[in-house]
Amino acid sequence: MSVTAPQGFEAAGVAAGLKSTGAPDVAVVVNRGPSKVGAAVFTGNRAKANPILWSQEAAKDGVVEAIVLNSGGANCFTGAFGFQTSHQTAERAAELLGVSGGDVLICSTGLIGTGDDVFRAKVLDGTERAITALDADGGSDAAHAIMTTDTVAKTSTFQGDGWTIGAMAKGAGMLAPGLATMLVVITTDAMLTAGEADAHLRAATRVSFDRLDSDGCMSTNDQVTLMVSGASGVTPAADAFRAGLVEVCTDLAVQLQGDAEGASHDITIEVVGAASEDDAVEVGRSVARNNLFKAAIFGNDPNWGRVLAAIGTTAAVFDPYAVDVSMNGVRVCSEGGPDRPREEVDLSPRATHLLIDLKAGAASATIFTNDLTHDYVHENSAYSS
Amino acid sequence: MSVTAPQGFEAAGVAAGLKSTGAPDVAVVVNRGPSKVGAAVFTGNRAKANPILWSQEAAKDGVVEAIVLNSGGANCFTGAFGFQTSHQTAERAAELLGVSGGDVLICSTGLIGTGDDVFRAKVLDGTERAITALDADGGSDAAHAIMTTDTVAKTSTFQGDGWTIGAMAKGAGMLAPGLATMLVVITTDAMLTAGEADAHLRAATRVSFDRLDSDGCMSTNDQVTLMVSGASGVTPAADAFRAGLVEVCTDLAVQLQGDAEGASHDITIEVVGAASEDDAVEVGRSVARNNLFKAAIFGNDPNWGRVLAAIGTTAAVFDPYAVDVSMNGVRVCSEGGPDRPREEVDLSPRATHLLIDLKAGAASATIFTNDLTHDYVHENSAYSS
Repeated sequence: MSVTAPQGFEAAGVAAGLKSTGAPDVAVVVNRGPSKVGAAVFTGNRAKANPILWSQEAAKDGVVEAIVLNSGGANCFTGAFGFQTSHQTAERAAELLGVSGGDVLICSTGLIGTGDDVFRAKVLDGTERAITALDADGGSDAAHAIMTTDTVAKTSTFQGDGWTIGAMAKGAGMLAPGLATMLVVITTDAMLTAGEADAHLRAATRVSFDRLDSDGCMSTNDQVTLMVSGASGVTPAADAFRAGLVEVCTDLAVQLQGDAEGASHDITIEVVGAASEDDAVEVGRSVARNNLFKAAIFGNDPNWGRVLAAIGTTAAVFDPYAVDVSMNGVRVCSEGGPDRPREEVDLSPRATHLLIDLKAGAASATIFTNDLTHDYVHENSAYSS
Repeated sequence: MSVTAPQGFEAAGVAAGLKSTGAPDVAVVVNRGPSKVGAAVFTGNRAKANPILWSQEAAKDGVVEAIVLNSGGANCFTGAFGFQTSHQTAERAAELLGVSGGDVLICSTGLIGTGDDVFRAKVLDGTERAITALDADGGSDAAHAIMTTDTVAKTSTFQGDGWTIGAMAKGAGMLAPGLATMLVVITTDAMLTAGEADAHLRAATRVSFDRLDSDGCMSTNDQVTLMVSGASGVTPAADAFRAGLVEVCTDLAVQLQGDAEGASHDITIEVVGAASEDDAVEVGRSVARNNLFKAAIFGNDPNWGRVLAAIGTTAAVFDPYAVDVSMNGVRVCSEGGPDRPREEVDLSPRATHLLIDLKAGAASATIFTNDLTHDYVHENSAYSS
């Protein structure tokens, strides 16, 4: 059901010729209200794509009527012309929907540096046709139209007490950084103020998408948007809504991890015994970005020395000779030295669990990453993106 | 001629059975004086191997009589037993050489977590036999004995006005971080005080080994040591000596880059127009660590969008819409937008030049890196190290 699972939303996905394959490549999601609350978080990359520059401004007032997303071109580093493309797309959608252009967000994904007049014409045409095709059951079509190297469409829903959350995502990465552009649209018919929507979205992304780190590369186009229709008429308890939102975001983050380009292992890095949550995140992220560790996991090699070497590059509180490391349940390193024989570790399953106990405190965090494989190199060397 | 090019040094390399291939794996370099000045710089990794923990203390007094190096085992995360192995090796060498154990440095490279009693016995035996084999022409043997995945031995010499610098290196990486452990021994018969040796070494490594960043992974065992015999009786001009040392260190750094595991391109990232040298280094390093950019170069794809995306993750002063990017002499990006067609760029040569003009000032820096290849993944997944 995707983004049309909650009441008050319509969506569509159409083929506008941006993808050479002829697959759907323009999606629109519209909030029919009664509330038009919206919140969004954006890539931390300082080199931001034009749709990000547009959407950042458009989202500031907490009102979002609609969002237009395209695959097949990132419209990034395309200069003033590219910004005008995003602007014109928002204005065209607004005109057809009878709303203000400043309340329409834009997302793009695909090759950086593409965004000429042919691109613009196709995006505008696709936007028109998607709006014509809007449907209360259009969530699945929209989820398919935003796919790039994704092998499956990614959607999630959460049923609250009288309210619903729906969502779709593309990509295999995170807000900062990301393997490939991550675009997420989340909808809900719960009743929330703009301030509540913003706070819930930031809190949920911090512990979900922000902890997905496929390859340490930050996209110029990442955007996560929450649209609130209030159509259920139900005001949820804050804790209950946040929990549901975290569940949806984590579900999508794990789906993105599972579809990461070229990966053969989904690695869950659980850091415990940290002096602070920030320390736990820093340690987990450092390991997640260590190419030698990631290549070892691809080779089913429980190389705990590379884990300790990665921890050693952080500023986290730890004593190298106190740390324990376990892989898939086998403690291969105890107090910074060898423990169980590496032969006991079975790394053949795709799901891989790395447990790091820093023995420095009571805080913890989990980072989601992937291994470094031949296919990753192939996908990212043979094709521009 | 390696480390025995200057007067006052003897060296040897022998096979002690640490390498399963039977290749030489223990090297000794001895300073016969008259001066016994030494200086060393060590990995920035907080998880340091036992030979680093030993050598850091031994080098503090500015006196270095000898250095014992082994391949075939990193003696890292091997606990108190491993530290005692480094200590005993220094004491054994000192006893045979008639010097103090505290003036003998130790270097090890190989798999982390290995360093049992068999390892210790082989290292001690190799140390004895290497000292027996010491020779004023032993520099080449020593350079071969420290190789691990290196395909060629790496040596360099510089002839000053009455004085000489000699050097050997293994690995393909840098002080912080490094692809694999980098061990470097530099010798000179110039007359230098301990303070001068330390200052020259830090200055030279800062602009050479510290700017080599093959894959962003920092070793636990990196060490660069300068040994000063003063046997020429010549006190060089400070500028002249530093220039010679920088030349030797840069020569070795480029040799390490050229032999990096699995690489098919040697990428020179020249950052100009930076507001500060620190900014230039940060930008160059960020690009050097970007897997998507590195995979693109492997695929001969001049993907400048990935360069800008990497710059965008830094804190350097820059405007994304001012930056120029050239690859192998073709400006593919001008002021943050497309310039010359990517088809004009020929990335087939191994030597690859990336020029980034930040347009933010007058500072510059050059970072040396490699591409991300199938062979890199293979070498680092199929074998433990």
